[in-house]
Amino acid sequence: MIYLDQAASSFPKPNAVAEAVGKAINEYGANPGRSGHRLARQASETVDLARRELSDFVQGPPAERVLFFQNATQAINQAIFGLGLSEGDHVVATVYEHNAVRRPLEWLKAEKNIEVTYLRPDDKGNFSIGSLKEAVRPETRLVAVTHGSNVTGAVIPVNEWGRYLKDQELFFLVDASQTAGVLDIQMKDWHIDLLAFPGHKGLLGPQGTGVLMTGIGVRLQPILFGGTGSHSADPLQPDVWPEGFQSGTLNTPGIAGLLAGLQEVKRIGMAEIRQHEEKLTARLLAGLSDIPDVSVYYAGTPERLGVVSFSLRGTDVHEVAMILDEHYDIAVRAGFHCAPLAHRELKTEDSGLMRVSTGPYNTEEEIDTFLNALREIREGLAE
Amino acid sequence: MIYLDQAASSFPKPNAVAEAVGKAINEYGANPGRSGHRLARQASETVDLARRELSDFVQGPPAERVLFFQNATQAINQAIFGLGLSEGDHVVATVYEHNAVRRPLEWLKAEKNIEVTYLRPDDKGNFSIGSLKEAVRPETRLVAVTHGSNVTGAVIPVNEWGRYLKDQELFFLVDASQTAGVLDIQMKDWHIDLLAFPGHKGLLGPQGTGVLMTGIGVRLQPILFGGTGSHSADPLQPDVWPEGFQSGTLNTPGIAGLLAGLQEVKRIGMAEIRQHEEKLTARLLAGLSDIPDVSVYYAGTPERLGVVSFSLRGTDVHEVAMILDEHYDIAVRAGFHCAPLAHRELKTEDSGLMRVSTGPYNTEEEIDTFLNALREIREGLAE
Repeated sequence: MIYLDQAASSFPKPNAVAEAVGKAINEYGANPGRSGHRLARQASETVDLARRELSDFVQGPPAERVLFFQNATQAINQAIFGLGLSEGDHVVATVYEHNAVRRPLEWLKAEKNIEVTYLRPDDKGNFSIGSLKEAVRPETRLVAVTHGSNVTGAVIPVNEWGRYLKDQELFFLVDASQTAGVLDIQMKDWHIDLLAFPGHKGLLGPQGTGVLMTGIGVRLQPILFGGTGSHSADPLQPDVWPEGFQSGTLNTPGIAGLLAGLQEVKRIGMAEIRQHEEKLTARLLAGLSDIPDVSVYYAGTPERLGVVSFSLRGTDVHEVAMILDEHYDIAVRAGFHCAPLAHRELKTEDSGLMRVSTGPYNTEEEIDTFLNALREIREGLAE
Repeated sequence: MIYLDQAASSFPKPNAVAEAVGKAINEYGANPGRSGHRLARQASETVDLARRELSDFVQGPPAERVLFFQNATQAINQAIFGLGLSEGDHVVATVYEHNAVRRPLEWLKAEKNIEVTYLRPDDKGNFSIGSLKEAVRPETRLVAVTHGSNVTGAVIPVNEWGRYLKDQELFFLVDASQTAGVLDIQMKDWHIDLLAFPGHKGLLGPQGTGVLMTGIGVRLQPILFGGTGSHSADPLQPDVWPEGFQSGTLNTPGIAGLLAGLQEVKRIGMAEIRQHEEKLTARLLAGLSDIPDVSVYYAGTPERLGVVSFSLRGTDVHEVAMILDEHYDIAVRAGFHCAPLAHRELKTEDSGLMRVSTGPYNTEEEIDTFLNALREIREGLAE
């Protein structure tokens, strides 16, 4: 199997990930923060260490402001709904937002009468700081933006955005679902108030993990209520970080696996990972440009991820993906990628797109095998 | 280590659990429901099989109405907030509810002006059907009740409650956090509309898993919004089960582990598990009754779990738990167990209680060792 669906979930994982998960299950499977005994303390220590290492990794807030969720989507829900936006408030986002950002915003539009401006890219797929400046207005309470598109692979310069936004009275939320573990992120220097990302993509951890980091100046309301281990007599959720936002038992094995994934990313080195991804992506783009009838969507953005979407004229993307899977044992993703506004922008809302996404363990040979397969499929379907 | 904190999280897990989790991570770590390729299909098949087996296990609804969450708390949040309760609606619960039920209800009280009646037990710790009948009124939209108390171990006869409530115009939610995998549960015959439970307690699965099952007659509003794999162009959450309630990437490894845990419960046999628990609990209660100054809270309920809470006069429960941990390598839990109304009812809201909880892998020898340790500690502290 050649796995080129890394933007959905990274695969394979480093061996250390399943080992750390198994160790948590088999050696200290107790409930962190709930009891005082040795096993529970060991579970708590693992979770605390993961908080600290994750925060260090992105120049984040104190460890108690590192929150764990089942996935990045829930982390983003907590971020957006936690701000208590109300009628008349305005939000700026982009057409590249994943439904994890868009649907909470659309719910607030429908139920709370907030307004949302979705910025559009220029004809090369770039978002200028000028368009951001134009969109922000006195009622803007939140700018929510993806660091990198899961459709076009375009990287949005959130560092520049943050430097501009720091003087505005609003919150800056960055969805780093496609970038955490791949691109440098500096919460503090870039003035990011809220940073969300999954554990199971670029950070190479297991599914079942998502992270929200919240700057120390941000007041947040919890969206889930329940047992918090401490302050248990309070009828309402206690205003305590992180407990007030972590109701119920945490996924300790998953968090242990995420920590192992993060440590592997640090061991390989993010610069090395990024360089490898750029090499594979350049090879992929060059190969695709040689295949007639292939249209890559916004290949030319100044900075881009190892996420490449394209169409093959005269073919159905789902059919091509199925042939790749069944006849070539190559996994890609065809469809809409949970980002409908991006597809509307690209005028592919009916057809969808084929997406190829790479990770640190993919090789140049795999890219070549994929390109050869695509050439054969094109010829076969053209016959 | 003698682990008697099973009510917080079961330990150890069957070997098959970490094996299934590791296999999911290492062999098919793709994103279920997101792509069409072989690995993603394998992930989807595991999740679907878990849905079906879990539903079969409790006479539950069709598989698409089996929803996965990070823990039972989130499942309960989805259940309670999903019903769209509004001002003037009335809810019946009990003082034995965990904060996972109580805090969502208190939030609705504070924010939506709903009313909540918390039923109190009689002086033996039992809840009569009569008190339920008295509490239900025309405005009652929801009866939310724990199947078994995580403090006293009392079992509430939810089968009788369900049979009475089936003729009322309301929803019946059962929190089976302490009972799933230990006591028989029959959603259909008992007319349970919503059933929530964790994967990591009696079902012997890993942390990071919680389940909500919803009867086919129940309309539910999602509480989390995001990518659903299908219907991605809809700006709002699609009204589709299960996708509309499962935003973001599922914890496939955790679900695979939960399935393995469930299969182990079925292999041992729940009758066997229950019989073993009753044997250990009887031994524990008999031993405790022989120790002067020990007060067990409501030992005499007609049906009880392997969850026993007690105080030891003249001692601090946290100190005793610490000595058990440090000097005897015995893990119990001391404190308030996230169930403050139960402690108020038991008049232990200042002191907390020591809780001993057993599981299928605990032995009579472990109970005896614990009892001997407690006797020694009592004598040592009395000196």
